[in-house]
Amino acid sequence: MTTGPATRQRQADRSRETRRKLMKATVECLVELGWAGTTTTVVAERAGVSRGAQLHHFRTRGELVAAAVEHLGAESVEHLRERAERVNGSVVAVVELIADFYASDLFTAALELWVAARTDPDLRTVVVPLEARLGRETHRLAVELLGADESRPGVREAVQITLDLVRGLALANQLTDDGRRRERIVRHWARMLEESL
Amino acid sequence: MTTGPATRQRQADRSRETRRKLMKATVECLVELGWAGTTTTVVAERAGVSRGAQLHHFRTRGELVAAAVEHLGAESVEHLRERAERVNGSVVAVVELIADFYASDLFTAALELWVAARTDPDLRTVVVPLEARLGRETHRLAVELLGADESRPGVREAVQITLDLVRGLALANQLTDDGRRRERIVRHWARMLEESL
Repeated sequence: MTTGPATRQRQADRSRETRRKLMKATVECLVELGWAGTTTTVVAERAGVSRGAQLHHFRTRGELVAAAVEHLGAESVEHLRERAERVNGSVVAVVELIADFYASDLFTAALELWVAARTDPDLRTVVVPLEARLGRETHRLAVELLGADESRPGVREAVQITLDLVRGLALANQLTDDGRRRERIVRHWARMLEESL
Repeated sequence: MTTGPATRQRQADRSRETRRKLMKATVECLVELGWAGTTTTVVAERAGVSRGAQLHHFRTRGELVAAAVEHLGAESVEHLRERAERVNGSVVAVVELIADFYASDLFTAALELWVAARTDPDLRTVVVPLEARLGRETHRLAVELLGADESRPGVREAVQITLDLVRGLALANQLTDDGRRRERIVRHWARMLEESL
């Protein structure tokens, strides 16, 4: 008996769904338990996926976590783009969206991964290219949302300041809720950025 | 027999020296091995201090690491102040010094501690007040070095942007050497800051 196209389609759907569940559970574990608590066993249990199925998709913990952060990153970029299309397009509104994007679970999960990778050479080889890709994508998105013309002097630097600043602000939000201060700083910077663009 | 003042002085010196050795070894461990590798056993070995003496000074790993980061923070603030007195006092030079101050082992060690504290309630109770103290001290130092008059509108926000920006830049320096990009961004921001002050 051969498997027909409908069966193969169902298998592909199931496989994709398993991957998605594993990646979602991984990010939840990173946020709740940190890197040390995000073991493959804990993730498989939370996702309701057998260890065999997990190993079929991701051979190592590093591979799983990097895939999860990359997937969440791509999803978040799409989400940010959709929200940005709904705001009035003012520089202040866009910078606020970007700052909120960073002060989120994505940043927290990525931070756990980045910090673990610093002292783990195997993980580092996975995370360094991921950091570069996410950095490029976020920069491109910021340029697009801000309608920034990077050929003009100082504009590229102003966009980079925006991204490094919101990363710094996201860091200050890890142990305590820094939302009110962040809002004030973001508005102030957005007005300075507006003049630079 | 009673112990004379000279003996008590020698004991106090030895005790201070033991503390200093333990704190120095702790920061080195955090930078080289990360939080997970910074166990009290590893630190005592590296410092050449007996476990008994270590326990006399620091009852828990959290207490030891927080004291080490606070001590390094205070030392670094002094070091930064001395260096700032030797530069010409231009805003660009001061912002460069502050950015270098953050892109250092102090930041790396603190980052390991902050990230671990996020998912460890006991550690968090130690680190939250430490973060607040270090934040206040660095802000005060930045105001002083920049000669900023915070009663003028926008100046307080500009100083805070400086600090959050250099934290974001320090984060981007954890996995790869981001020194060249950092230098460019810092100079650009420093010129904008100069106009704000």
